[in-house]
Amino acid sequence: MYTKITTAQYMDLGKRIFKALGFSDADSRQITDVLLTADLFGVESHGISRIMKYYNLLKENIVNKYAVPKTVFETPISSVIDAESAMGQIVSVSAMDEAIRKAKVHGIGLVQVRNSNHYGIAGYYALMAAREGLIGISMTNTVAIMVPTFSAEAVLGSNPIAVAVPSDGDDPFLFDGATTVVTRGKIELYKKLEKKLPSEWAVDEEGSVSYDPIRILECIGEKRGGGILPVGGDGEEQSGYKGYGFSMICEIMTSVLSGGAASKHKTDKGDTSHCFYAIDPALFGDPDGVKQRMSEMIDEIHSAKKAKGQDHIFVPGEKEFLKAEERKRTGIPISNKTMSEIGQIIKELGINMADEDILCQSVSL
Amino acid sequence: MYTKITTAQYMDLGKRIFKALGFSDADSRQITDVLLTADLFGVESHGISRIMKYYNLLKENIVNKYAVPKTVFETPISSVIDAESAMGQIVSVSAMDEAIRKAKVHGIGLVQVRNSNHYGIAGYYALMAAREGLIGISMTNTVAIMVPTFSAEAVLGSNPIAVAVPSDGDDPFLFDGATTVVTRGKIELYKKLEKKLPSEWAVDEEGSVSYDPIRILECIGEKRGGGILPVGGDGEEQSGYKGYGFSMICEIMTSVLSGGAASKHKTDKGDTSHCFYAIDPALFGDPDGVKQRMSEMIDEIHSAKKAKGQDHIFVPGEKEFLKAEERKRTGIPISNKTMSEIGQIIKELGINMADEDILCQSVSL
Repeated sequence: MYTKITTAQYMDLGKRIFKALGFSDADSRQITDVLLTADLFGVESHGISRIMKYYNLLKENIVNKYAVPKTVFETPISSVIDAESAMGQIVSVSAMDEAIRKAKVHGIGLVQVRNSNHYGIAGYYALMAAREGLIGISMTNTVAIMVPTFSAEAVLGSNPIAVAVPSDGDDPFLFDGATTVVTRGKIELYKKLEKKLPSEWAVDEEGSVSYDPIRILECIGEKRGGGILPVGGDGEEQSGYKGYGFSMICEIMTSVLSGGAASKHKTDKGDTSHCFYAIDPALFGDPDGVKQRMSEMIDEIHSAKKAKGQDHIFVPGEKEFLKAEERKRTGIPISNKTMSEIGQIIKELGINMADEDILCQSVSL
Repeated sequence: MYTKITTAQYMDLGKRIFKALGFSDADSRQITDVLLTADLFGVESHGISRIMKYYNLLKENIVNKYAVPKTVFETPISSVIDAESAMGQIVSVSAMDEAIRKAKVHGIGLVQVRNSNHYGIAGYYALMAAREGLIGISMTNTVAIMVPTFSAEAVLGSNPIAVAVPSDGDDPFLFDGATTVVTRGKIELYKKLEKKLPSEWAVDEEGSVSYDPIRILECIGEKRGGGILPVGGDGEEQSGYKGYGFSMICEIMTSVLSGGAASKHKTDKGDTSHCFYAIDPALFGDPDGVKQRMSEMIDEIHSAKKAKGQDHIFVPGEKEFLKAEERKRTGIPISNKTMSEIGQIIKELGINMADEDILCQSVSL
């Protein structure tokens, strides 16, 4: 059960809520744009469905809407920003802007951020650089949920890595993936469907693979051990240590370099670390050649022989861009649960919605 | 059946062979050191077992021992080198040296290499930077062997990614992993053992998972389709598209940026692309803090709760460093096949080995 709204309605709604919460026009638009991109891409877990979480964190002043992030160290090609518990999306957009500015002058910009909050989808920031003709990289650490190979305890986060590279085509290359085999949301979905997990996705407090989503979610929720496996799964047979290694690389590029809290110590209350890197392909002499070769590689993958029963080979980011096109045309589905949370927030904030507003137009599909 | 030799014997042997092949003293030592490190780490597939391959490539002048790699583009923080089909290890060590020099002056050095040859283990070059207190990254593309998600054709290489980060401990963090779920060597091992593959490692020419190592190796050898799966395995259930995405990132950071041949078009005859990046943690204000936090993270992972039946959680690189310590003490095992190839090469090159030389001391263990 969900309602479909247009991108214009989505933007209007988000702007009104964040303005009522005390953000400027520009910041309200910016936060909403990050959420909107996630919902357009089909990454609902990082879109407007998080509104109640953000609302509560802002109400409790854990996310500080008045924060003025401080640059605590800077060189021409790098900086370290203490976000002072600012809204993740705001400090992150300005950090990637800074990386882009530095890259345009010096070829590269490496910006580390600490003491921030949840920043939405990592890919948003990597894309900012790619839209400027630069290679963009962004990562963030998260609360510990990944159990390293041979462990029974979550020590690392889902720790996503996003890389975007300009191409000659309509869309850049965009890889954006958690280093866990699946996200917690996927396990919650199986609980809701009352189904066993279909594969080696998670371990219990003994470090043994469990297919029971209820048990796994209890293990995680009560912090009694266990958690989600890295990409590559359990043990060494399918190279789970590689997903675990990539997660450590994310942790290094975020908390280790910025001086922020490691995943294991994170409370999610103003102690998230991110990185934002922009690299000008002109550093390698031939930026047009880079775009052209990027497109050639994508074309060659598209034209490779398909596996039996498949009619298309997707490249990273492609599914998201296709989904965004479709949703721009046909609307963005918002679950009834989220709709009712939005209704509650609007009421609490005393936002005046006119009769023609979307909340009155919910169509259950 | 194998022979154990000491590191000194290994170095002496390697130096003699590469000198007889026309390399200088310094270059012969350098090539041997890369091979030795692989054998010390237990990565036999990238050690002296490749000697016959290198020997033949040098004899046929595919690897050009007289090559003078050319810097075709340069900025203070980057360069692109055309290796002109030089020995991979030689151009690669000098490329990482250049990245390190740039990083020491400007904070970062990004060096791309094209038209090179097999360079051994990626981790060797990442480690060079870490030994200098810098973050080191190296990747290389390889001939196509990875089948992207939903494809039935190998389009990408095993495309390894290596990252090394200095720590306060004896050894740096060292991640070095192919982005395929396993290497071809692992499949060859199962063929030799006459066993079925234990997991979803590879697909046949239809893109369907096959557990038959003979069939898979035929598919690869005859280039009739099929190949090895990315980390994460078949389809989307275990996020195989993430390993596939990481492989594309490696391809971008090697052939796309350097202007070299993509994995799909590689012949392995002077058309390999690598990258060598060195980053000074001082760019983020507090290099000692970076080392300290790196060590803290390693300590915390070590002290996390172990999975049932496990007594140690390894961090990336740890197994390799432990193996190297052991082999430095007890000797490096060289298979009888490799020993006999070495004997043949020595004979062909007319290298004079004295009675006390290792080839006369082979002890089958």
